[in-house]
Amino acid sequence: MPASLVDQAAIVGIGQTEFSKESGRSELQLAAEASLAAIRDAGLTPADIDGLITFTLDTSDELLLMRALGLPEIRFWSRTPHGGAGSTTTILHAASAVASGAAKHVLVWRAFNERSGHRFGQPNAAAPPLGWNWYLPFGLDTPAKIYSLTFQRYMDAYGLTNEDFGRYTVVARKHAATNPNAWFYERPITLADHQASRWIVEPILRLLDCCQESDGGVALVISTAERARDLPQPLVRLRHVVDSHLMGGHVMFNYYLEDHSRFEECHSAAARLYGESGLTASDMDAAMLYENFSPVVFMQLEGFGFCGPGEARDFVRDGHIELGGSLPVNTHGGLLGEAYIHGMNNILEGVRQIRGQAVNQVAGARHVLVGGGRGAMILAGD
Amino acid sequence: MPASLVDQAAIVGIGQTEFSKESGRSELQLAAEASLAAIRDAGLTPADIDGLITFTLDTSDELLLMRALGLPEIRFWSRTPHGGAGSTTTILHAASAVASGAAKHVLVWRAFNERSGHRFGQPNAAAPPLGWNWYLPFGLDTPAKIYSLTFQRYMDAYGLTNEDFGRYTVVARKHAATNPNAWFYERPITLADHQASRWIVEPILRLLDCCQESDGGVALVISTAERARDLPQPLVRLRHVVDSHLMGGHVMFNYYLEDHSRFEECHSAAARLYGESGLTASDMDAAMLYENFSPVVFMQLEGFGFCGPGEARDFVRDGHIELGGSLPVNTHGGLLGEAYIHGMNNILEGVRQIRGQAVNQVAGARHVLVGGGRGAMILAGD
Repeated sequence: MPASLVDQAAIVGIGQTEFSKESGRSELQLAAEASLAAIRDAGLTPADIDGLITFTLDTSDELLLMRALGLPEIRFWSRTPHGGAGSTTTILHAASAVASGAAKHVLVWRAFNERSGHRFGQPNAAAPPLGWNWYLPFGLDTPAKIYSLTFQRYMDAYGLTNEDFGRYTVVARKHAATNPNAWFYERPITLADHQASRWIVEPILRLLDCCQESDGGVALVISTAERARDLPQPLVRLRHVVDSHLMGGHVMFNYYLEDHSRFEECHSAAARLYGESGLTASDMDAAMLYENFSPVVFMQLEGFGFCGPGEARDFVRDGHIELGGSLPVNTHGGLLGEAYIHGMNNILEGVRQIRGQAVNQVAGARHVLVGGGRGAMILAGD
Repeated sequence: MPASLVDQAAIVGIGQTEFSKESGRSELQLAAEASLAAIRDAGLTPADIDGLITFTLDTSDELLLMRALGLPEIRFWSRTPHGGAGSTTTILHAASAVASGAAKHVLVWRAFNERSGHRFGQPNAAAPPLGWNWYLPFGLDTPAKIYSLTFQRYMDAYGLTNEDFGRYTVVARKHAATNPNAWFYERPITLADHQASRWIVEPILRLLDCCQESDGGVALVISTAERARDLPQPLVRLRHVVDSHLMGGHVMFNYYLEDHSRFEECHSAAARLYGESGLTASDMDAAMLYENFSPVVFMQLEGFGFCGPGEARDFVRDGHIELGGSLPVNTHGGLLGEAYIHGMNNILEGVRQIRGQAVNQVAGARHVLVGGGRGAMILAGD
């Protein structure tokens, strides 16, 4: 039995719909369109797909999607708990399925009308997510407010201000500005624009620190590294993929930890990701980092070892995360600039970078880290 | 890469709470009690567990369960779509996780207050399960009614009456009568009792054809076959485990098929289960078959090849499924006699039979099939 998922799988196809604020069609249709695009991109047909994976939060039923796509038989299906911080968990499931022989070609999808339909960022007192009852009596009724407890501690520990977070947003919007898929295509901003946007949680988050609310769907096809060699796209190996959920966590963060200025799950995931793959942070040519809110990029830059504790502020300020920098981050614009498809569109950009198909291509990208916070993967070329 | 899950995993621990109609405690507590029992049964400690799997329908959050049990880090977690017909899917996930190296010791749980809390068998027009909107306008608002469309076709095809189904219930209650864990312990029934119970869907299902509504929790620990040898319980190998979800299905059955008297998913799962493991139906010494309703046992007896199409009526009538018969079925009393923990308690009985620890032990049981309808596994001894 293998001791880890190192070098067992590959991402062989990617697909998506347009990203919008009002798709005008059902979430099931978005899922089907993105899925069909991914299957075609992989050089496969629906009959080749025998695995299906999505989020527990996804509203499209597997059997309805099978019928929509014409999938004859599914041999492995699963759903990933929690939200976007578990986006990379979908790939972990898929890799396990193909590596163990449970399935051959696994389709992963996530599609929603998150702007025109159910808006995750809004308060939902009538049916709060499980465990939120601990927060609601204190007025903490949105992700922005709940996560800001952690962000504030991070700011205090290392002396950051909201302007520091704004520097990430400026980069994300700069990258999105040259990406035709991005909602903010051709709409870069300045730091002054960021600072002029309204407070959401003062003095931590402004509007432009928050991810978009988007309608759209994305999908990927995963196979074994071996089968991937027979398929048409440039090889995108899954060098490794890990999850690390630590005791005491709540949804994304962990309020029982001693030190709230560290994203501990991220450090733990990184230790295994590097230790088992034999790679290090310095081997990474780019990183796609989940950012429901801009501070999460800073905490992940430190958690995944791209800089030391408290050094992310200067790392961002000094231009390392821009195109041409030492570690371009979210080259498509990320969840703030391109769209918020629950983190999954960041994985697609990782695949495009390795294939050499990105609009903001990092020349010669050999290794890309995709971080979900509580999970991560390293993609690599042939 | 292995081509299937044949001989890759083992079930190393089982645990449960009492089965009742009013547990008097939360579903999370039931989950934690059953889980701790399973971990101890496996000779492990909470710190050894690095995988967590349950149903999408389970209300216990992974992070809350981790904290309740004291699990330091989880490296693989997943949820299985749909309900009890996917009970065996939990084991498929667990086997994939350990076989691929994603996790070492995976805890599977399912716990609910299905009688004192949310009752799955009752109509739920306010929030119907996905896709049920096709049925509700016709008054098909419960599983009993929806599934009876299939059961009636089966009855018509082979000339069965409700009395034939009653013969299964009599056996289930007979087995439960000698099982102290069973709700119907020491309460056997006669066929006349069955025929005197009220119609639920006339002329197909009576009350005593329906599974119980139960409060309780069950849990299992899965590891690799190799690691299992170092653990204290008698070895219970997972010879194979498969899922087969065919296009056109709706929750449990498939109304787009040509022939509704066949449980097609079951035939498809069986073909792979036997073909890849090298075993046949005649190698099985006992079978635990999911039965939300008694007719499902008949359709699975045929689907898993224990008898030919239309022969289940006589197979049951002739005593084959009783203790001492050629294929004892649901020796604990099944979901009608012991409890309805969404199918999961049937898997525990399969494990006990292989270990030689069942109250109604099948002497020398070497192979046990556990069928969920759309998925199945074969358990075997050393």
